[in-house]
Amino acid sequence: MESLNNLINQTIESIDWNKRPENLYQPIEYILSQGGKRIRPNLCLMACQMFGGQTQEALIPAIAFEMLHNFTLIHDDIMDKAALRRGKETIYKKWNTNIAILSGDALFAKAFEYLLSYQGNGKEDLLRLLTKTSIEICEGQQYDLDFEQCEHVDIEQYLNMIRLKTSVMLAACLQAGAIVAKADHNAQNLIYQFGIKIGLAFQIQDDFLDVYADVKKFGKQVGGDIAENKKTYMLLQLMNSTDTQDKQLLYHYMNDNLDKEDKYVKVKALYDKYQIGDMANQVINTYFEEALKFLTQINVPEDNKNDLLHFANKLMNRDY
Amino acid sequence: MESLNNLINQTIESIDWNKRPENLYQPIEYILSQGGKRIRPNLCLMACQMFGGQTQEALIPAIAFEMLHNFTLIHDDIMDKAALRRGKETIYKKWNTNIAILSGDALFAKAFEYLLSYQGNGKEDLLRLLTKTSIEICEGQQYDLDFEQCEHVDIEQYLNMIRLKTSVMLAACLQAGAIVAKADHNAQNLIYQFGIKIGLAFQIQDDFLDVYADVKKFGKQVGGDIAENKKTYMLLQLMNSTDTQDKQLLYHYMNDNLDKEDKYVKVKALYDKYQIGDMANQVINTYFEEALKFLTQINVPEDNKNDLLHFANKLMNRDY
Repeated sequence: MESLNNLINQTIESIDWNKRPENLYQPIEYILSQGGKRIRPNLCLMACQMFGGQTQEALIPAIAFEMLHNFTLIHDDIMDKAALRRGKETIYKKWNTNIAILSGDALFAKAFEYLLSYQGNGKEDLLRLLTKTSIEICEGQQYDLDFEQCEHVDIEQYLNMIRLKTSVMLAACLQAGAIVAKADHNAQNLIYQFGIKIGLAFQIQDDFLDVYADVKKFGKQVGGDIAENKKTYMLLQLMNSTDTQDKQLLYHYMNDNLDKEDKYVKVKALYDKYQIGDMANQVINTYFEEALKFLTQINVPEDNKNDLLHFANKLMNRDY
Repeated sequence: MESLNNLINQTIESIDWNKRPENLYQPIEYILSQGGKRIRPNLCLMACQMFGGQTQEALIPAIAFEMLHNFTLIHDDIMDKAALRRGKETIYKKWNTNIAILSGDALFAKAFEYLLSYQGNGKEDLLRLLTKTSIEICEGQQYDLDFEQCEHVDIEQYLNMIRLKTSVMLAACLQAGAIVAKADHNAQNLIYQFGIKIGLAFQIQDDFLDVYADVKKFGKQVGGDIAENKKTYMLLQLMNSTDTQDKQLLYHYMNDNLDKEDKYVKVKALYDKYQIGDMANQVINTYFEEALKFLTQINVPEDNKNDLLHFANKLMNRDY
């Protein structure tokens, strides 16, 4: 896995950007050089290997999807007014909003340009997949913005939103690897569904960790979602579960200007009381099990699945 | 020409957008239904006809480029803080900035999706052309933003900026029509260069008209560029031409808080004194003549060129 990451990073570093205008290309190089976990290109390369393909063959689609992912981060950070990403200033903060809009647009176009340089199997299928995925991610992000303004959001609506915003990209990366390795449509669909379920499990775990993570081990501050009244899986379940009195208490915590730490402790007490953490863990486990069932159905030597299985477990069993 | 416009508008109206989330797709339908002059798809269809192709065959690429164009308008209006476009509220004003960013992104992706549904000749060439053009437009827009912050901009730099921001899209639409009609690479290059030169002539004429247009005939207010100190071809030539005393006068007009009408009259007097209008007209004519030379070199029956020639003349000979 370490060697895949090196391959991905070296390939990204070797890309020859036009460089001019500097205000367009420097932000792109800035965000792509920050690394991050490179989850998406790793998934693409591992799926390709699993289906018997050569890693090198999947490198261009893998990095095209990583470009697409980073484009969405640039624009999301504007919309979410996020000052930091991966511990560094976001592009709209370090430069400005206009430069963030434009360099995002250019990176989006560059993802297509990069994929157009691919000469292997299934080029048009890959182009369609990249396009479909980018549209779905926009839809997911719009639902996420819409939900901020909604009084009530159903769990079903929430799951559809995170499917679009998070899962489809992971699923598409896996399918892209399968396409490169000439897997048939049925196998492509199975690995795609595996990605969808893993994505749902991963996102709900992220919501869970905002309440229950061990800060020292999790490495990021807990309670960020609580501070912002973010309609996570946890909050939506809590709203569905509380009795009238506790519902009023919850709305009071959410709407009064409580100190952040005080608010976290009080809202967490409600999560504890209604055992929302247990409910979330059950759902996470269910999605993870469903993901594994899709993987089981894929007809390749079991050993071929080890890396992907290991990676999925690592994603889910973060120490907390 | 009327019938081409009808065909374009009917095809755009018949597109089945996903519709949900509404805040993503309503802005897209809003901007695409406003019409505008449909210059770009018209150019694509006319080039296809000129090279002996069927109009219908070029419809998908033509509209994909119109989508790309409208995506750039959505994002440009955010960056330029433009409240109105085609006499209607811009998307970022009517909805908000986040919705304008996202619906622009989605329309960009939809342009690729639409082009991927094309089943005629040269699909991959068309995809490359759409991609290359979108990258160049981002570069042009970034130069335009950069120039706002620059003390000095060369005429050469300005011409490169408007080539990227305006000309390459017109040129690409023409080339797209040629690709559909199976024109050879040399012919594709000639029609592309025709578009580049027409685009330069068109943009410099736009700069000229901001100073010298007859408001009643031109239909838009003159002096908008002068009010904003916009570094147009006119202003850059004036800065190059003025003596020291008039240069100081110009900087005074630009930096003091003059009444808009007063500023227009005073700056226009300098344009008159240094005959910048004549210089601009010479350059416009030169580019237009160069464009026609490229068209002359294209080896198709002369009659085939009539519609495109007529359209180019109509673009350039707006009554003023």
